[in-house]
Amino acid sequence: MLKVKISILFIVIATISCAVKKDKGSLNNNYALVIHGGAGNIVKKNFTQAKENEYRTTLNEALSKGIEKLKQGESAVKVVELVIKQLENSPLFNAGKGSVYSNNGKQMMDASIMDGKDLSCGSVAGVTNIKNPISAARVVKDETPHVFLYGEECQDFCVKYGIELEDASYFKTSRSWKQYQRALKKDNLLLDHDQGSINEYNESKKYGTVGCVVLDKQGNIAAGTSTGGLTNKKHGRIGDSPVIGAGTYADNASCAVSCTGVGEFFIRGTVARDISAQMEFGKKKLDEAGKLSMEKLEKLGGKGGFIAIDKNGNYTMMYNTKGMYRGYANSKGEITVSLF
Amino acid sequence: MLKVKISILFIVIATISCAVKKDKGSLNNNYALVIHGGAGNIVKKNFTQAKENEYRTTLNEALSKGIEKLKQGESAVKVVELVIKQLENSPLFNAGKGSVYSNNGKQMMDASIMDGKDLSCGSVAGVTNIKNPISAARVVKDETPHVFLYGEECQDFCVKYGIELEDASYFKTSRSWKQYQRALKKDNLLLDHDQGSINEYNESKKYGTVGCVVLDKQGNIAAGTSTGGLTNKKHGRIGDSPVIGAGTYADNASCAVSCTGVGEFFIRGTVARDISAQMEFGKKKLDEAGKLSMEKLEKLGGKGGFIAIDKNGNYTMMYNTKGMYRGYANSKGEITVSLF
Repeated sequence: MLKVKISILFIVIATISCAVKKDKGSLNNNYALVIHGGAGNIVKKNFTQAKENEYRTTLNEALSKGIEKLKQGESAVKVVELVIKQLENSPLFNAGKGSVYSNNGKQMMDASIMDGKDLSCGSVAGVTNIKNPISAARVVKDETPHVFLYGEECQDFCVKYGIELEDASYFKTSRSWKQYQRALKKDNLLLDHDQGSINEYNESKKYGTVGCVVLDKQGNIAAGTSTGGLTNKKHGRIGDSPVIGAGTYADNASCAVSCTGVGEFFIRGTVARDISAQMEFGKKKLDEAGKLSMEKLEKLGGKGGFIAIDKNGNYTMMYNTKGMYRGYANSKGEITVSLF
Repeated sequence: MLKVKISILFIVIATISCAVKKDKGSLNNNYALVIHGGAGNIVKKNFTQAKENEYRTTLNEALSKGIEKLKQGESAVKVVELVIKQLENSPLFNAGKGSVYSNNGKQMMDASIMDGKDLSCGSVAGVTNIKNPISAARVVKDETPHVFLYGEECQDFCVKYGIELEDASYFKTSRSWKQYQRALKKDNLLLDHDQGSINEYNESKKYGTVGCVVLDKQGNIAAGTSTGGLTNKKHGRIGDSPVIGAGTYADNASCAVSCTGVGEFFIRGTVARDISAQMEFGKKKLDEAGKLSMEKLEKLGGKGGFIAIDKNGNYTMMYNTKGMYRGYANSKGEITVSLF
C-alpha cells in the first residue's frame, strides 16, 4: 500500500515538477502590495480580449487604490482590507459578490486577516450574507477576544459593528449559478462518491480566492484572504482561507502570505506558516522558502499558488497551475498585472 | 532594534522562566503515548482525595488501554482516537460528555486528528450531538476529500459512517451546567463588554481540552485534540483545537503536538506547528523547541500547555498554568499520571 502511494507520489512529482511558475521581485521597496484573484486553468485561449481586459482593469484598480493609501501612510492591515473589499465587490472573483454556490444552494464564504506587527488575526467562516467577509474578519480581529467565528451567530455579531449584509440576490452571478448547476448535474452521477470528488475539484478550472499581502511605510506587513470556497461544497466544509497558518499568515519576523488552491492540501501542509517558518527558523530567503513549500504542496498532490512579501519588500507570486490572477504595485510607481 | 528585541527577550525569559512547568523524558521508547486533560488552576487544595483519585484513575485507564493497543501493534492514529474517546466518555473533562455550554445553551464541540505518516488530517467544529467528536474528525480524515467540516451538516454526514449521536441530556453534567449558570450571571454584568472577557477566560479556572500524542511500533506519530471550548462562548466561536497547526499537528519529520489553553493565543502563535517547525527547520530538539514556543505564547499573553512526542519517543508536557491533567505510558511498562 505504502509502495503504491510512494509510486503515485513520484509520478505526481515527475508530472508536475516542471510546472511551477513564479514572478518575484527584490526591490527594496519602501512600501508595496501584491494581490491574487485565484489560480487554476487560466489560459489565454479561454478569454475574449474584452474579458481579459475586464480582469486586468479590476486588478489594476485594486492595486492603484491600495498603493495610493500606502503612499498616504495607511497601515498594511487596513490596506489589505481595502484591497480585498475591492476584489470582493467584483463579480469576477470567487469571493464576496462572485462567490460560488455550496451544495445547499447558499454562498458560504470564508475570510481571514492577520497583522504581522503583533500576530493579531481574525477569521470568519460559513457566512452567507456578509457583503465583505474580509471586513468581518477585521472586526473579529479588532472587536472581539476571539479570532475565529462561524456562521449566522458570527453574522449577527458583526452587524453590530457596522458590517453590511446583502441578500442572496446580490451574490447571484450567472457565472457562479451556471457552475453550480453543472456541479449538481455531475454530482448526481457521482452520488456519494465523495472520495473521488477532490480530484474533480483538483482538476476543475479555477480555485477562486482573492488575497492580498502588504508592506507599509512603517515597515509592518499584513495578509488577508477571502473566498466562496469550492462550488458544490458539502457538509459544512471549511477550506484553508480562514485557517491562520494554512491560507493566511503574517509575521514581521518573516513574511506575509496569502494562498489559493484546493484548501485541503494547504491545511495539511500549513503552507502559509511553512513559508514563514522556513524564513524564521531555517534562515531561508523568501523566494527559496516559497519554492520549498511549493515542493511540499506538490508532494501532497496539491494544486494552487500563493503570494508573499517580506519586510524588505521582496515578494513572490508562485503557482503550479496554468495561471493565476495576480499583480503587484510598489513605492517606485510600478504596477503590473498578470493572468497567464 | 535587534538589540532591543534581544533585551526584551531576556527580560521576558527571566520573568517567566520560573512559571513554566514541564515533565519530559528521553527514553528511546519503542512506543509511547502522552495525554492531557486540560490545563489551568489545578491545585491540590481544590481536590478532595476522592476527586483526585477519580481523575487519576480515568487518566490511568486511558493510558493503559492505549499502551495495550500499541503493544499489539496498533497504529498511532488509531490509538489517538481510542484514547481520546475514553476521555470524551468521562464527565470529568471538557470534551465529549463533559463539554461545557456555549452561550446559546448548547455544547458546541471541536476536535481534530492528524497522522504524522502522511500529514492526513481531519477536523470537526461546532458539532452539538456527536458522542465522540474525535471519531468524527477521523471520519473526515479517512472518508472525505475534505479536512475541516462544521456543524449540523457535518453531523449528518458523519452519521452515515457510523458516528453515534447523543441528545442534549447525555452531555448535561452538573459541573458544566453550574459553570454555565455562573457565566451567564456574570455576563449580565459584563453585557457587550466582549473586549474584556478574554481576560476573564484567561483567568478562569480551567481550559478544558483533552489530547493525545502517540508513537507506534512502526515509528509513526499522530496527534489529536477534542474540546467543548469555553464556557459561555458566543458568536459561533471556534478555538484552536480543530485548527491544524494551532491546537494539533503531527509530522513524522518532527513531532506530534496537542495543545490546551485559551485557543485564541494558540491560533495566533500557530503553536503546534511552531514547535514542529523549530525542529524541522531550526534543528532544535523537542524539549528546546517546546520551550521556545512556550516563550512565544507567553509573550502573546497566552495561558495553557501542550504535550508533544517525537519519533524517538522523546516527549514533553509543558504548561504555564498551576497544573495540567497529564500522563504518559511507554514500551518499558512505565505509566505516570500527574495533576499538579
